[in-house]
Amino acid sequence: MAEYFIGIDLGGTNIKVGLFDRTMNLVDKSSVPTGADMGPEVVVERMVTAGKGLLKEAGLRIEDLAAIGIGTPGPADYPRGIVIKSTNMPKFVNTPLRDMVASGLGNRPAILENDANVACWGEFTMGVGKEVTDMIFMTLGTGIGGGVVCNGELVRGVGGNAAELGHVIIYPNGRACNCGQRGCVEAYGSANATAARATEAIQAGEESSLGEVLRNRGEITSKDVFLHAENGDKLACDIVEGTAEALALMCVNMLHTTEPACIVFTGGMIAAGDALLGRICRHFDRLIWTLKKETVTICFATLGEDTGIIGAASLAQHAFQQGQI
Amino acid sequence: MAEYFIGIDLGGTNIKVGLFDRTMNLVDKSSVPTGADMGPEVVVERMVTAGKGLLKEAGLRIEDLAAIGIGTPGPADYPRGIVIKSTNMPKFVNTPLRDMVASGLGNRPAILENDANVACWGEFTMGVGKEVTDMIFMTLGTGIGGGVVCNGELVRGVGGNAAELGHVIIYPNGRACNCGQRGCVEAYGSANATAARATEAIQAGEESSLGEVLRNRGEITSKDVFLHAENGDKLACDIVEGTAEALALMCVNMLHTTEPACIVFTGGMIAAGDALLGRICRHFDRLIWTLKKETVTICFATLGEDTGIIGAASLAQHAFQQGQI
Repeated sequence: MAEYFIGIDLGGTNIKVGLFDRTMNLVDKSSVPTGADMGPEVVVERMVTAGKGLLKEAGLRIEDLAAIGIGTPGPADYPRGIVIKSTNMPKFVNTPLRDMVASGLGNRPAILENDANVACWGEFTMGVGKEVTDMIFMTLGTGIGGGVVCNGELVRGVGGNAAELGHVIIYPNGRACNCGQRGCVEAYGSANATAARATEAIQAGEESSLGEVLRNRGEITSKDVFLHAENGDKLACDIVEGTAEALALMCVNMLHTTEPACIVFTGGMIAAGDALLGRICRHFDRLIWTLKKETVTICFATLGEDTGIIGAASLAQHAFQQGQI
Repeated sequence: MAEYFIGIDLGGTNIKVGLFDRTMNLVDKSSVPTGADMGPEVVVERMVTAGKGLLKEAGLRIEDLAAIGIGTPGPADYPRGIVIKSTNMPKFVNTPLRDMVASGLGNRPAILENDANVACWGEFTMGVGKEVTDMIFMTLGTGIGGGVVCNGELVRGVGGNAAELGHVIIYPNGRACNCGQRGCVEAYGSANATAARATEAIQAGEESSLGEVLRNRGEITSKDVFLHAENGDKLACDIVEGTAEALALMCVNMLHTTEPACIVFTGGMIAAGDALLGRICRHFDRLIWTLKKETVTICFATLGEDTGIIGAASLAQHAFQQGQI
């Protein structure tokens, strides 16, 4: 009986592949370089070979595979499984990735989904969200990716582009965002924006212990900003408060939109720990209405580096069980 | 066979009751004063009597009734059908309204839902949203009520308080809202806020043809503001632009959150017609990202005064067919 699932996390640098049983226990996983420069055929062959390798190692045949989940950044036509284009994989243009992968893996049912949605689904089903039905998910990295789960289902929107949470406007006429809008939460609360706001303040002449980092290394990271905030640097503290306030505003706005049980942050910046989470919660408490006591849990994701493969496999299982694929 | 539905719109002033067949055609409707001062037993008896009267007039028996839907403002424990308290009906305190009404109507299955969600569901199933699966709904009145439909289902949230869209913060540190927050969209884009912003500007000394209205009548309505804007009064135009910009910001933010096919406005202020809708669309086009062309439809609701009873009956039918009640 086919009761195993493969989850694939296709990034610009590496392909991560995981084999899971029907209780979503990880049987085995592997990682190979994407080789994006060599074009989609080579990349797909690597994905397929990795998947077949995991099955073989586990003593399984292709018939034991129930379904395949693939997570990758957009823009893509997810319902049809086609990568339209990809910043990190320029040779992918209107590539029918889902069907190419499925074709190499015994034509098993497959699903292609946005990587942020996949990570969200992983946390929702196997991580901090596994006891709830409604969740908001935000990844704090170069930008801010998002995921929205309502009534136990991913909210994909009419064109598959829902949950672009980084582009919710929180400060009208604020900082310019790469997307063409102004005041997006991504322009304040992402790791890159945190570093950029510090850099700009120093370049504008503000005093800070980060000034020396910028001069010596030529750049500042969000990690530097949190470190210097911890050491009491005033500018760094202000920047970190601004990051937390932006994210707290999002929490307020998401609460009033979908009333999730939990709002989950992930991405490199959560390494800052309570220096970030505590501040977000304090700003949330200050900003939220007084009409009723809110009990939403604001927290960090727990799945770590395997989120992509767990989410992809779990989404494949869900879609398979629901008859969606 | 039980295939009729009763939809009840319980307001502070009137009870509206509608009888619908299984294709949601209105068989008959009636309206009676709520009599809220006389307490819940009297109000429920009026609801029940009105419902029975409609059945009798149509030559139907209680056995022909499949289910009952009731819409009323919160706060309520909607899943359990209990009105916790009510601004307009102070004698309703922890009143098990749903079961009281059902008890009077042959113990048929019944559902209690927030009035904004009910109106949203009416427009979604029988109005402008009937061809779509994802919709955002906002009522522009004293405040701003909201409704969110994703994947063909109302988003109720973990506590039944999702879609409090009036309290999404669009201008941090902005105007104070009754809810205790600052900068809520309700404090800019509602009918009351539109009138209040004009009044405050005049009281602060700004020149406007609305000044005379305020002096003569002691107050300004949003209708006055739109009328004077049409006649070219600069302050009135600025206020109306501000209202439209606030609502356009909400459209941008809701698009990036749930990516609905349509965003639907209703409430008294939509009488302003294109003077409002055209402005919202222009601000939306100016504010929205340039990453991709958006095709969301921003429009007005079409069901009019029967929205409450249509929505309540339609929600009862949906819940009944889904086995939720």
